Amino acid sequence: MNETIELLKSHRSIRKFKGERLDQATLDELVRAGQAAATSSFLQACTVIQVEDPARREELAQCAGGQAYVADAAAFLVFCADMKRHRLCCDMHGAQMQSGFTEQFITATADCALFAQNVAVAAESMGLGIVFIGGLRNRIDRVAELLELPELVYPVFGLCLGYPDQNPEVKPRLPLEVILKKDRYDDSQDCERIRDYDEQVRQYYRSRTGGNKDMSWSEQISGMLIKEARPHMLAFLQQQGFLKR
Amino acid sequence: MNETIELLKSHRSIRKFKGERLDQATLDELVRAGQAAATSSFLQACTVIQVEDPARREELAQCAGGQAYVADAAAFLVFCADMKRHRLCCDMHGAQMQSGFTEQFITATADCALFAQNVAVAAESMGLGIVFIGGLRNRIDRVAELLELPELVYPVFGLCLGYPDQNPEVKPRLPLEVILKKDRYDDSQDCERIRDYDEQVRQYYRSRTGGNKDMSWSEQISGMLIKEARPHMLAFLQQQGFLKR
Repeated sequence: MNETIELLKSHRSIRKFKGERLDQATLDELVRAGQAAATSSFLQACTVIQVEDPARREELAQCAGGQAYVADAAAFLVFCADMKRHRLCCDMHGAQMQSGFTEQFITATADCALFAQNVAVAAESMGLGIVFIGGLRNRIDRVAELLELPELVYPVFGLCLGYPDQNPEVKPRLPLEVILKKDRYDDSQDCERIRDYDEQVRQYYRSRTGGNKDMSWSEQISGMLIKEARPHMLAFLQQQGFLKR
Repeated sequence: MNETIELLKSHRSIRKFKGERLDQATLDELVRAGQAAATSSFLQACTVIQVEDPARREELAQCAGGQAYVADAAAFLVFCADMKRHRLCCDMHGAQMQSGFTEQFITATADCALFAQNVAVAAESMGLGIVFIGGLRNRIDRVAELLELPELVYPVFGLCLGYPDQNPEVKPRLPLEVILKKDRYDDSQDCERIRDYDEQVRQYYRSRTGGNKDMSWSEQISGMLIKEARPHMLAFLQQQGFLKR
């Protein structure tokens, strides 16, 4: 195992940061590392909004359900799936862009995630800590308004970056045999494997909370999925020009 | 700039591989590095199908529009967004899973891309080359059939891995100023910046093809986006249980 793989495997989310700031040259370098990721059909459909304005940061923290580190982190980036610049390209050549396809939504969303993961890895390689903020989608309409996002742009998630002021354990992942399948999808043994994993997760939570949290993975997942999941998303995305066909 | 960032910035897709195979222990290690990526709400919604069967590899190469390296690469992985194991968790606890939400489609798709990018970076850190295969979505119904993917699972993209037998240049990316915006979305200067970039891309293609390909970025994009984009995707995904609400 080389150092890069060791770095990747040591990831854990950081939610408490030291006061130290990040200089712009460093941030630019992280974003350039993000840009270097693969991009579907060379579309480069990711735009990053670096939020510095304290009032905007504070309101974004509220949108994410009161995650204070969104306001406190040394840097906060919002990764936006962006097909607007492609319409600009079409305009430049007098062409009529065909938009609204689900396929374009997938490529733009995947582009953002590939890009953001490179930023995360680059940041961690410098000793920074990160946490993704999917909670922005709680109030995605307000987030879009705050960042003045036009049609054909949507905020996929945020990313907090800063110098770690905590040192949490790495969270155990599902057994490899559940995740990696050969030639065909076969989950006939997954239930049993998940039961073993459940105990690992239970131990992890117990040790992290001094016994206060006692929950298995399947319990946590089932508790989450009996509820509806941000039911406003489809209408919002269609209003932004996505997922119409 | 440290070595990891240098590695990230040196990415280019490899489409020609040496015959050398990859042993299973190495592949397992790459997939574990993928698992270590952040996952939305701890859902771990990515399943990887490692395709070894030559007949399946050959047909997947055809599905992707005749990309021979899908059959030839040392390894070929298909990253699937998977909410089926979450239904299993609900079943284990007598809970009724609420599915079909667009939000779940986003988190599962993003989980796959974060995971896959870690696999890509881990592979490149070992001297392997990679190329993502979005082309699987050309014939996504057939891909799902070949890999026996059940409801609540869909193939996002494939990934070829192997020892590079070519050494292409790094493809120039959009200027940082187009990609990275401060506090709000402002593209008032993007048109001008894209024109500068267009010339860079033109030079890149000219030099790579000995003058045969002479095309700017905006030209390439506009040519692509006047056409419909895999219009079968929405119906397929809904049939798999996604994007229903």
